[in-house]
Amino acid sequence: MANASIDRKTVRLEAFSDAVLAIAITLPLVDLKAPEVAPGGDLAAAYLAAWPHYLAYALSFLVIGLYWIHSHFGGKIVRKTDHGFNLLTLAFLAAVSVTPYPTLPVAEHLGEGANGRTAAFVYACVLTAPMLVWLARWVYAVRSGLLDPHLTPAYLKRLTVKYAATVVLALLGVALALVGDGMLGIATTILVTLSYMAPPGLPAYRPGEEPENELQEADERPA
Amino acid sequence: MANASIDRKTVRLEAFSDAVLAIAITLPLVDLKAPEVAPGGDLAAAYLAAWPHYLAYALSFLVIGLYWIHSHFGGKIVRKTDHGFNLLTLAFLAAVSVTPYPTLPVAEHLGEGANGRTAAFVYACVLTAPMLVWLARWVYAVRSGLLDPHLTPAYLKRLTVKYAATVVLALLGVALALVGDGMLGIATTILVTLSYMAPPGLPAYRPGEEPENELQEADERPA
Amino acid sequence: MANASIDRKTVRLEAFSDAVLAIAITLPLVDLKAPEVAPGGDLAAAYLAAWPHYLAYALSFLVIGLYWIHSHFGGKIVRKTDHGFNLLTLAFLAAVSVTPYPTLPVAEHLGEGANGRTAAFVYACVLTAPMLVWLARWVYAVRSGLLDPHLTPAYLKRLTVKYAATVVLALLGVALALVGDGMLGIATTILVTLSYMAPPGLPAYRPGEEPENELQEADERPA
Amino acid sequence: MANASIDRKTVRLEAFSDAVLAIAITLPLVDLKAPEVAPGGDLAAAYLAAWPHYLAYALSFLVIGLYWIHSHFGGKIVRKTDHGFNLLTLAFLAAVSVTPYPTLPVAEHLGEGANGRTAAFVYACVLTAPMLVWLARWVYAVRSGLLDPHLTPAYLKRLTVKYAATVVLALLGVALALVGDGMLGIATTILVTLSYMAPPGLPAYRPGEEPENELQEADERPA
Repeated sequence: MANASIDRKTVRLEAFSDAVLAIAITLPLVDLKAPEVAPGGDLAAAYLAAWPHYLAYALSFLVIGLYWIHSHFGGKIVRKTDHGFNLLTLAFLAAVSVTPYPTLPVAEHLGEGANGRTAAFVYACVLTAPMLVWLARWVYAVRSGLLDPHLTPAYLKRLTVKYAATVVLALLGVALALVGDGMLGIATTILVTLSYMAPPGLPAYRPGEEPENELQEADERPA
Repeated sequence: MANASIDRKTVRLEAFSDAVLAIAITLPLVDLKAPEVAPGGDLAAAYLAAWPHYLAYALSFLVIGLYWIHSHFGGKIVRKTDHGFNLLTLAFLAAVSVTPYPTLPVAEHLGEGANGRTAAFVYACVLTAPMLVWLARWVYAVRSGLLDPHLTPAYLKRLTVKYAATVVLALLGVALALVGDGMLGIATTILVTLSYMAPPGLPAYRPGEEPENELQEADERPA
Repeated sequence: MANASIDRKTVRLEAFSDAVLAIAITLPLVDLKAPEVAPGGDLAAAYLAAWPHYLAYALSFLVIGLYWIHSHFGGKIVRKTDHGFNLLTLAFLAAVSVTPYPTLPVAEHLGEGANGRTAAFVYACVLTAPMLVWLARWVYAVRSGLLDPHLTPAYLKRLTVKYAATVVLALLGVALALVGDGMLGIATTILVTLSYMAPPGLPAYRPGEEPENELQEADERPA
Repeated sequence: MANASIDRKTVRLEAFSDAVLAIAITLPLVDLKAPEVAPGGDLAAAYLAAWPHYLAYALSFLVIGLYWIHSHFGGKIVRKTDHGFNLLTLAFLAAVSVTPYPTLPVAEHLGEGANGRTAAFVYACVLTAPMLVWLARWVYAVRSGLLDPHLTPAYLKRLTVKYAATVVLALLGVALALVGDGMLGIATTILVTLSYMAPPGLPAYRPGEEPENELQEADERPA
């Protein structure tokens, strides 16, 4: 444990990540402006015409929200942080924060031939980036011993395989985005991302090393 | 308690919610720009003409602020969180964050016939959404045993009835927004929202299971 | 202590306030855009011409920062929160968040006659509002017993007088902003605000009721 | 320890700093808008043409991220805060938050003669400012006894020399930015900033006064 004194618990890293994700999830609202219609204009039509903005906002919120939930879960099994993990976390946050950026052109151009493929390709790339960095960060954490040492090797391996599979499928989506009208590619990448919506599996601990339930103390009152 | 190991206390969920609400409450300021008048222009008139922006900002701040206060109170009685509760919290945050969006057209078009009704209808819908999600999240929490088990069933039922009534009244407001000039509908929905300004009732605990006052330890010094 | 169960410690209120202030202090950066000059244009001149924006940003940062420092100090002596205190805190946050809004017209119009007076008057009002709400919140906290009960009545009174004096002087600044070119009024209000830069006085505790130094446990290692 | 009662632990200051940095790191996203092309326009070309925006975003994220990592490390050795340290922290946050501001003109004008030098000069100044304030804050903390008293004087001195050297080199970069096409100056300042990417050295404690490892309690379960 050569670097022990500059390792720190993950509390402050978690708080910083959460703050960045909270801002990234809310910031697309800046672009969500109510339509301004001239006197005699049709407000209802203007509201309806803005649907790509609503779709872009909802999708962005969902994507960043799922990453937040997943890193909320990750906070349970990562036990400490070091300089490299901090840097990779920054890269992860940068990648996630950018995900809303290319959403709008997809809603506007999909099915439009070359522009539709471009929009799909850029969006698929931007959705893939956080998965790639997540995988890199995970492998780094496993190799640097930052995870709870009580977890079973089989459990760690299962997660590594799962994260790697996600990246492979997402890259397939990137390739497919260049084919036809791009629809298939973008659907693949979004589905892969939404697969994070399934509840994460239970951590498996070595026998006799299960953590005490963090809710237990709340049960000390008579029930 | 099949999923115990991925349940977590609500600390980090509360912190994330608070951060999102803090950003959502502050973000409308981006649109609040001081008027720029040409040389010879009338700055005072320009300031006064911007009143719909002030009203929109004040109303948005109040609405999001009330939801924050209410979820601050909710933090007292929700005891843990799970994956479904996290997802519903995300939906709640998305709904609340959007509430400032359709405020401005109301200030600009109310009383203007069709556009006034449209503005009122959209605003009433957007104000109703967080109440709906709040109700769904509440019912989910009750059914999944996420609440403090020491609360009385009668108390839980009282809150369920209250939240459901709020939704029904707000939906009435949505319908009324399509009638006449929309004023009645919007007034109904805003009043329902502002009803959250009344201090929340005291939680009722099963006899002998009252929580220790969280302020008690502060009284240990001689007084 | 009729409402004890819905009173809560101030931890979460402090965290929410800090988040709102952190956002409010950073948000004016959105308007701080580097000049874009056409080919052949003069970038240096464009940078220099933007000075009112720099002044506005610096002043806004200072004002909100001082309020943060002051409420950081306040966190030491407020012991719990209730529904009314939450509402007044929201009002305080809304008032502080708005302070950057009318900064730019001051830099642009001061000395320009009527527009200069208008700019000065609006800015003086907006700077006075948080002091007013702060005073109201303080008086509410004193009357509702939310403060540390070990503080001496003389200390509480001294702070009440200080906060009230600040408001009176700031209102004087508001009045003076309507006189001459408004410079005197705005200088008065800014000076009153900057008076918060002086370190807050030491809390005075009843004899024998001094709090234990919150840093003490850090001294337990051999020194 | 005359001012002990208004000194506070650094928890809340750290949280506020982290929030401001989290916002500052995310806010440049507001300017990162996906290109809107007219029907028949070329979306791919529009995406590619926006590269200065991507570079500016990446550089801004990296710079602010490194400062966050470094102040995360600083949190380990600063033991308490006072009014002066709070003010200097505000100045530090203001300086860091501004770093994204002049990034874009560099990407657009570098190599363009006078405008290139101006862009380089402004960027070098803005990158130097946080180092200057960091140094001032560090010296203040050392002189005011805010640091962990168990650190060796040699360790403190080593850091002082390091921070001062950074400032000197950065100022050299500022001067060089006025020479030739500014490239050399800007490269120097960016390299100095990126030198923060190297992991911070281990704190050195007086013999027998090493802190207990903050991760130790996590090892109490059988391993």
